[in-house]
Amino acid sequence: MKLGRVIGKVVSTRKAGNTDGLGILIVKHLDEEMNVTKKTEACIDTVSAGEGDIVMICSSSSARLTARTKNVATDSTIVGIVDSISTGKEYRYKKTNNK
Amino acid sequence: MKLGRVIGKVVSTRKAGNTDGLGILIVKHLDEEMNVTKKTEACIDTVSAGEGDIVMICSSSSARLTARTKNVATDSTIVGIVDSISTGKEYRYKKTNNK
Amino acid sequence: MKLGRVIGKVVSTRKAGNTDGLGILIVKHLDEEMNVTKKTEACIDTVSAGEGDIVMICSSSSARLTARTKNVATDSTIVGIVDSISTGKEYRYKKTNNK
Amino acid sequence: MKLGRVIGKVVSTRKAGNTDGLGILIVKHLDEEMNVTKKTEACIDTVSAGEGDIVMICSSSSARLTARTKNVATDSTIVGIVDSISTGKEYRYKKTNNK
Amino acid sequence: MKLGRVIGKVVSTRKAGNTDGLGILIVKHLDEEMNVTKKTEACIDTVSAGEGDIVMICSSSSARLTARTKNVATDSTIVGIVDSISTGKEYRYKKTNNK
Repeated sequence: MKLGRVIGKVVSTRKAGNTDGLGILIVKHLDEEMNVTKKTEACIDTVSAGEGDIVMICSSSSARLTARTKNVATDSTIVGIVDSISTGKEYRYKKTNNK
Repeated sequence: MKLGRVIGKVVSTRKAGNTDGLGILIVKHLDEEMNVTKKTEACIDTVSAGEGDIVMICSSSSARLTARTKNVATDSTIVGIVDSISTGKEYRYKKTNNK
Repeated sequence: MKLGRVIGKVVSTRKAGNTDGLGILIVKHLDEEMNVTKKTEACIDTVSAGEGDIVMICSSSSARLTARTKNVATDSTIVGIVDSISTGKEYRYKKTNNK
Repeated sequence: MKLGRVIGKVVSTRKAGNTDGLGILIVKHLDEEMNVTKKTEACIDTVSAGEGDIVMICSSSSARLTARTKNVATDSTIVGIVDSISTGKEYRYKKTNNK
Repeated sequence: MKLGRVIGKVVSTRKAGNTDGLGILIVKHLDEEMNVTKKTEACIDTVSAGEGDIVMICSSSSARLTARTKNVATDSTIVGIVDSISTGKEYRYKKTNNK
């Protein structure tokens, strides 16, 4: 799964693919230092992620393997909000309340 | 889903994969500032998008998850016309009538 | 679908994946000005494309969604020969008899 | 399959896609000299890999083709720990006990 | 399908995904002049390819569409050994007995 940071949302009224009622968020991918890159995509949200959250993005047909995206035309679904990323005992990222 | 801007259309008479009757549009991907990049692809249109529209493009097997692309050999389907993209209360993009 | 120009063909006698009897063509991807790039791949041909033709290439599981590639191990199938690509009333590409 | 080196782990409590009970590891891809690159992703672990291990990562729908990831929303699963990589009789990489 | 040259093999004893008994080869992708690039991946072999062979690599779910990879967790399978690649009557590559 790619890692990304939520930076905003998309509104679309004329659409296809059973996405009604699902939030669409704009996410920037992270580099190896967990900083945002320029790579940006729109993702279906299944975990009520908010702006600033670091999330895991699932692509390919597996993007439909959540309870809410079964028949949805999504190729990138947010499948988790990251609490922390660590190497050994050292944190590379740790979620805080004020993000 | 990738974001792109429709810049034209493709005509193909000798083709395979059940695409008869479906429009094929040329779309340029957007960068993180919502400006067009050089990356260009041909997409099956399911939402009657027009030139200039910012659209969401669904790839992989999910490109077949719309009512009109069920058995279609498409790996990139336009699944929505974007009305707006925002961060917090600030608009990054907002569709206008004259685009 | 990616756009590409057919530049040659591949011969392979020791192969797997039900590709017997299907042509395998070498295709170079096109950039946004419809000029060939260095990106090159081998594609299963379903539309009798010839050298010089501009074609549409379908990847992912949708590469199997043509009558001739149903059970074929292909991840890139030529699904159409492009007659023209246009923006508004202006042609970006138009097929000629001598290509 | 891509090759990568495990460099850490991800903790996520709010998640979707049937990943409960499965470890999520951070992996850096390797270049042709088997050195780590900057390309980083989160992978579902099915082989109890540890930090420092060189692993094989399976993406696309095949990421669900292990006993433990059948209905899991994963687009990258660690499917093997690499013991060695060799060209002819020469080792390019050989796992040691202290890694 | 991508084209690549086999440069070695992978040994992995702790693995998942029904790959027992299948060879895993290291392949470098080719550029448009049919020279090896730095892009390297591990591929399941179904055609008994050897070091030095130019091969076709099938990715995505189609990597499982050979007799030997039906339920295998593979996202890149070698599906053919290339005998020749030609443009018109001119060879770009031709396999020789001593490679």
